[in-house]
Amino acid sequence: MSCCLAAALFLHGAPLAAQQQRSVNEQRLRATLEKLSEFGRPEGAGFEGGVTRLGFSEEDLAARRWLVDQMREAGLEVRVDQAGNIFGRREGTDSNLPVLLFGSHIDSVPNGGNFDGDVGSMGALEVMRALHEQKGQTRHPLEMVIWVNEEGHHFGKGLFGSSAAAGLMDAGVLERRDGQGMTVADWLRRYGQDPARFADARIPRGRLAAYVELHIEQGAVLDEAKTQIGIVQGIVGIHWYTCHVTGFANHAGTTPMNRRQDALAAAARAALAVREEVRRVAGRQVGTVGYMKVEPGARNIIPGRVEFPVELRDLDAGKVERIWGRIQERFAAIGREENATISCEPLQGDKPALTDPAIRAAIAEAARAAGYSTMELPSGAGHDAQQIATLAPVGMIFVPSRGGISHSPREFTDWADIANGAEVLYRTILLLDQRLDAK
Amino acid sequence: MSCCLAAALFLHGAPLAAQQQRSVNEQRLRATLEKLSEFGRPEGAGFEGGVTRLGFSEEDLAARRWLVDQMREAGLEVRVDQAGNIFGRREGTDSNLPVLLFGSHIDSVPNGGNFDGDVGSMGALEVMRALHEQKGQTRHPLEMVIWVNEEGHHFGKGLFGSSAAAGLMDAGVLERRDGQGMTVADWLRRYGQDPARFADARIPRGRLAAYVELHIEQGAVLDEAKTQIGIVQGIVGIHWYTCHVTGFANHAGTTPMNRRQDALAAAARAALAVREEVRRVAGRQVGTVGYMKVEPGARNIIPGRVEFPVELRDLDAGKVERIWGRIQERFAAIGREENATISCEPLQGDKPALTDPAIRAAIAEAARAAGYSTMELPSGAGHDAQQIATLAPVGMIFVPSRGGISHSPREFTDWADIANGAEVLYRTILLLDQRLDAK
Repeated sequence: MSCCLAAALFLHGAPLAAQQQRSVNEQRLRATLEKLSEFGRPEGAGFEGGVTRLGFSEEDLAARRWLVDQMREAGLEVRVDQAGNIFGRREGTDSNLPVLLFGSHIDSVPNGGNFDGDVGSMGALEVMRALHEQKGQTRHPLEMVIWVNEEGHHFGKGLFGSSAAAGLMDAGVLERRDGQGMTVADWLRRYGQDPARFADARIPRGRLAAYVELHIEQGAVLDEAKTQIGIVQGIVGIHWYTCHVTGFANHAGTTPMNRRQDALAAAARAALAVREEVRRVAGRQVGTVGYMKVEPGARNIIPGRVEFPVELRDLDAGKVERIWGRIQERFAAIGREENATISCEPLQGDKPALTDPAIRAAIAEAARAAGYSTMELPSGAGHDAQQIATLAPVGMIFVPSRGGISHSPREFTDWADIANGAEVLYRTILLLDQRLDAK
Repeated sequence: MSCCLAAALFLHGAPLAAQQQRSVNEQRLRATLEKLSEFGRPEGAGFEGGVTRLGFSEEDLAARRWLVDQMREAGLEVRVDQAGNIFGRREGTDSNLPVLLFGSHIDSVPNGGNFDGDVGSMGALEVMRALHEQKGQTRHPLEMVIWVNEEGHHFGKGLFGSSAAAGLMDAGVLERRDGQGMTVADWLRRYGQDPARFADARIPRGRLAAYVELHIEQGAVLDEAKTQIGIVQGIVGIHWYTCHVTGFANHAGTTPMNRRQDALAAAARAALAVREEVRRVAGRQVGTVGYMKVEPGARNIIPGRVEFPVELRDLDAGKVERIWGRIQERFAAIGREENATISCEPLQGDKPALTDPAIRAAIAEAARAAGYSTMELPSGAGHDAQQIATLAPVGMIFVPSRGGISHSPREFTDWADIANGAEVLYRTILLLDQRLDAK
């Protein structure tokens, strides 16, 4: 009776608003996250000191060894693919069905927090532990996954493991060398893989029924709205441009104010114009100017040249293009007024990745049945799910980030919110198991 | 008859507007400047390729050796002081009178031009050559001077020689070490000096009757006004501040536009406010923001902290203080609106150095007698004269810089304008010789 576990959860008619008893164990999940936080914890610090556990590092390797033991204890059959992604499999009753996959990553940024990636990874483990404990059965084989080097700080390639799994990572990356002279290939060997077989990490189309990722929001939308569960509409596209302002460097003492071609003044106006144009339109789109490189860059020389980036993000690529068009008109006008030129080149960005409506519906239903408040929202940050979206339908569950802080030791999500997220993941997987690939 | 040379020049009643025959030799002066330009000329370039002749460098040392020979051939008694400044003396008829000093510097910035410093230095040599040729006699002893390392690019101490001569350079500077491991003391030894006697370079108060410096304007005021001679009112004071904006670094994808504390947006507004407040008041004051250091400085992170400098220059320190007061009010308002803090610290700057009215009058009279158009203006750039102004009355003669370009190979002053400047220097020195220390 593969259907009965899910049925037992959802069909007892309790009022929607009241929170149900969870199938996952909050205390165990918390203890597991606290244990994971020890791998890469700063010397002498506690849990709140954050973590530095870069992908392809000693700290990551140690955490993975510990994690594989935990996965085996939860009854999972563990394998590591040729890119270093860890999979833990729990068989279903129908071996012909594709895999229901869920997970996240455990690598961090330098001086990061203990929630980004960890919550979805340990949440997936908790789902597997709960099923193991309850001797639950599913039709589909279930797999949890730990994608390697999602942050990509080491070797400068984010979404490393999920890109390899989606066949989106060229093997040329294996020759990238870090400051210690180690290549990606060297690190893959340390992780127990054969770099010559890197392409084997690619997951064949049709092998996955769905991919679901639990993650902290990394923004303040849920926290401000006091909403427990975010149903992710999609991962926003990222549009990147690099802009150069060319004025004329000159003596700051001898050049009158009305004869200057100050590239920094023009760049300052341009950066403010980006913000104005992004704000001018309703919606959740964001735009950022993250740095300015000023040449010559001395306090007694009028700047002659400035480089600055523009980043625009939204689920709707067409909307971003319209905003960018207006920004370029503003830049041209500023250039004329400042007697400078502003020219921008697009960089390779990321296309928006929309989540699957049926998975969004399952998440909503799972959360409602558990009595949690929900909200649909875009993901402003990139996630492994966006790469897997090229292979299979994907969904994402967000839990609130206190104050919206992320990539910082101050990153925090309430333990109850984390357990709620894991509970929704558990219920969503079981709902999808019932609904997908129905005969 | 010590008075007769000057009298011969000024008392023949020609109309003021008509240009007089010069006492200095334009062709010889041009040839000397062209010869000097060979020391530090870029490989394979011509005169228009500019020059790199840093203070305390092989190129500077070679140029000095050549120059000392030229000075001796002009009948001067050459000595080098313990800071490396070169003096060439021509005795007067009254050995009790203080020295009339004039000169400039021959060191350059990296990739500089062949006029900044060189014009005043070779102009001083030309005055001495003309006097030598004409067997002219003066009451005062005359000295030309070549101040060492005015630009200060090497060892980061500008106005090096003139500061030492004015007693404004602490001997601690001798231990400064460059990228090659050489100290200032090492270089002074290479220049033939004994660093232990560095303080001997100080010129005793009363030893100088006056100091006059011929220099290119390094701005475009004379060039635009088509005026031949600038009479410098003074060297502007430089007020320096270093400002820090503190916002909050956050994820550029997940942080909504209305929840940002973007330090770069605040800094951009602050930089534009500096310009607005400097322009709001009539006058020749200038204000510059020369760089922005943005942290963390990634295209996908909202800037959390920005450092930028503010430089304000004017002859009137009180005016600068009033403008700075308004700028600080603007910064406070921007900080409130942007949910960021902007705080500024003053740095050691330079006080304004006013030129002596009697010397300005002599320059004006000399230029008028020679038939050149004149204009009073401040010097926006720093000069050795500002240090010597603490010891003795000073004056400065400017000649036009084409397009106001300086510190660049494109720096250029017409040869006729240079000769005019040297002629005014020649006549000014003779006028001052008559008028100063009269019995």
